[in-house]
Amino acid sequence: MTGWVKIVGLGPGAEELVTAQVQDALAQATDVIGYIPYVARVAPRVGLTLHPSDNRVEIDRANHALELAAQGRQVVVVSSGDPGVFAMGSAVFEALEAGPSNWLELDIEVQPGITAMLAAAARIGAPLGHDFCTINLSDNLKPWSLIEKRLRLAVEGDFAMAFYNPRSKSRPEGFVRTLEILQDACKDSRPIIFARAVSTPEEDIRVVPLTQARPEMADMRTVVIVGASNTRIISRAQGPIVYTPRSVLS
Amino acid sequence: MTGWVKIVGLGPGAEELVTAQVQDALAQATDVIGYIPYVARVAPRVGLTLHPSDNRVEIDRANHALELAAQGRQVVVVSSGDPGVFAMGSAVFEALEAGPSNWLELDIEVQPGITAMLAAAARIGAPLGHDFCTINLSDNLKPWSLIEKRLRLAVEGDFAMAFYNPRSKSRPEGFVRTLEILQDACKDSRPIIFARAVSTPEEDIRVVPLTQARPEMADMRTVVIVGASNTRIISRAQGPIVYTPRSVLS
Repeated sequence: MTGWVKIVGLGPGAEELVTAQVQDALAQATDVIGYIPYVARVAPRVGLTLHPSDNRVEIDRANHALELAAQGRQVVVVSSGDPGVFAMGSAVFEALEAGPSNWLELDIEVQPGITAMLAAAARIGAPLGHDFCTINLSDNLKPWSLIEKRLRLAVEGDFAMAFYNPRSKSRPEGFVRTLEILQDACKDSRPIIFARAVSTPEEDIRVVPLTQARPEMADMRTVVIVGASNTRIISRAQGPIVYTPRSVLS
Repeated sequence: MTGWVKIVGLGPGAEELVTAQVQDALAQATDVIGYIPYVARVAPRVGLTLHPSDNRVEIDRANHALELAAQGRQVVVVSSGDPGVFAMGSAVFEALEAGPSNWLELDIEVQPGITAMLAAAARIGAPLGHDFCTINLSDNLKPWSLIEKRLRLAVEGDFAMAFYNPRSKSRPEGFVRTLEILQDACKDSRPIIFARAVSTPEEDIRVVPLTQARPEMADMRTVVIVGASNTRIISRAQGPIVYTPRSVLS
């Protein structure tokens, strides 16, 4: 078998945040598979077939990639950000484990990318500069009670937090509840950052005290970062910097 | 003032994992500041002054960068990985906040990079494919009791975990204790991954059941990833894949 699958991260949006490794993989591919807006970021060329697909069909997409590779194709599966953070990495391995045993002989490689929380953190300072938790707020694939439990434990441990998929049209209630839990458990006005479409022309970054956060500040293109109790804001004419210090006093 | 500071991430080691954004910043710099082995990754050229410095002088380094920028220099502060994850980002902002008020007028930008845990996760599959915590195991700047508390809460929340700075010659005891806490709290043989010097010629990645993990498997060049309770291993002739599924059943 000469086929392969590379599961790659395109970063948050800007071309200058794509690694050379991923650019090389795309240059070698015969097939690119992924969610429509991510495949749209790949330039068409002779010899390359683009396979855009809709959201919520991750396992179909993963099976398709593995089938094509088993036929000898060179397949790149694209995610935005990093493929290992709430993206196609796990979906491909779920499909691999459930699939025919000859798929286990395929060359499969994951190529990392700049995930949204790191790009968002960089744009505002260094809010994830100390211990932090990364939580997917979608309850499509896990019970909401587990999300609530993790939020409360993250506050108890005084972690900074990054949230992916905070709010969608089909799940408007979860983020309302998230903010209620955080406001109740944190009992302070630490900064919360709403970073939408980071590194794209639509980028919009807003910092507010947690006490003033409102659900409509987030949508599915937003990554949300909540500071730890010691996270600081530096006020400047150019706009605020938010960072979490390296030290925690005993 | 025409000076600026860019705080950039060089990624875990391989040149192909450096973003074009960071390469451009290095090409524009008059001065590069950082820890000796990271500055050694920057090619010398006419017009560029390299300022390598030893470990544990992060604040001196940060002050130096801001002073040079205030004099009109174009300064790049290099970290490995991502500058916002246990790296120079927070140190520069601590120095900025404590420094003279004219520093607040400087152009300061953070440019993200591929942090070690994402590079390590990619090399073994997708162990951080669901909610996870990222913890710095060094107690140089925080009390050890807080590290223990966070470890126990992370296990209680069934997060996957990534550990930076797990073990150094001056702190041999902490990682012994970390493994004891995890083995006691997890009560299972979930996979733990020791990923050393990822993406460099010295790369060494080992997966063992948590019950068989030993302290000497880690050093300061190792990032450690611990699965959640549902993290899976796929055995293959080419070596194991470790991934955390996207779903948690209720």
